[in-house]
Amino acid sequence: MASCVFCDIVEGTATSRTIYRDDDVIGFLDIRPVTRGHTLLVPRRHSSGLADLQPEIGGRLFAAGQRLAAAMKVSALSADGVNLVVNDGRAAFQTVFHTHLHVVPRHDGDKLSFAKGLVVRRDPDPDETARILRAALEPDHR
Amino acid sequence: MASCVFCDIVEGTATSRTIYRDDDVIGFLDIRPVTRGHTLLVPRRHSSGLADLQPEIGGRLFAAGQRLAAAMKVSALSADGVNLVVNDGRAAFQTVFHTHLHVVPRHDGDKLSFAKGLVVRRDPDPDETARILRAALEPDHR
Repeated sequence: MASCVFCDIVEGTATSRTIYRDDDVIGFLDIRPVTRGHTLLVPRRHSSGLADLQPEIGGRLFAAGQRLAAAMKVSALSADGVNLVVNDGRAAFQTVFHTHLHVVPRHDGDKLSFAKGLVVRRDPDPDETARILRAALEPDHR
Repeated sequence: MASCVFCDIVEGTATSRTIYRDDDVIGFLDIRPVTRGHTLLVPRRHSSGLADLQPEIGGRLFAAGQRLAAAMKVSALSADGVNLVVNDGRAAFQTVFHTHLHVVPRHDGDKLSFAKGLVVRRDPDPDETARILRAALEPDHR
């Protein structure tokens, strides 16, 4: 298998700001966040996209998305809403070919800063963001 | 409970172009599609968003998304990719408060028509689109 940066993150041979872990899924901050707290949830086992992702693992990925969405709302980020997004295939803007679910915290009236975020994609203090999200997750999933 | 248009569709008291059914989830064409074939998958049982959606049903919703994504690729729509999207909360652009997963077929190089679709949101022949998607799904899920 060709090298895969998300597999490297899962195996700990590449660094990431990991904020979520369960038996099948890990979550880490997107290094180019559209909004503060934008996280990628990935299955530990490699699949390139929806077609080769086991449906059972897909279900766990989505459940992790629900859990993280709830945590983002109660966290100090105080998200008012969340977008869950899978971009499957290059035509759909997928750039890393290890299946991942984007979890993007949103705030009331953030349309303009969201649009700006799509271009700028930068968090000035990602370590603090990671700390905030870890603090909001149950101890088991930090 | 206040009236819910997606509950009405589930119960058959509102019309829709339904293309997918299983025990927990139904899918129908979005009446304002961003691209041709844009479908909404909804749990049969009402939940307003991710917070009150049972994780088990969330998993089935995602599995239905995987199945429909595969069907879109082999269908006469010949999708090259698919976006799966949940907009959870008004801040995240949710407009109907019955949890739903958008399944949006994409094509190589469709960036401009996709951007146009976000504004225009119209399919000139939705009956034919529904026929194409039903034909691509296994008989059990039409």
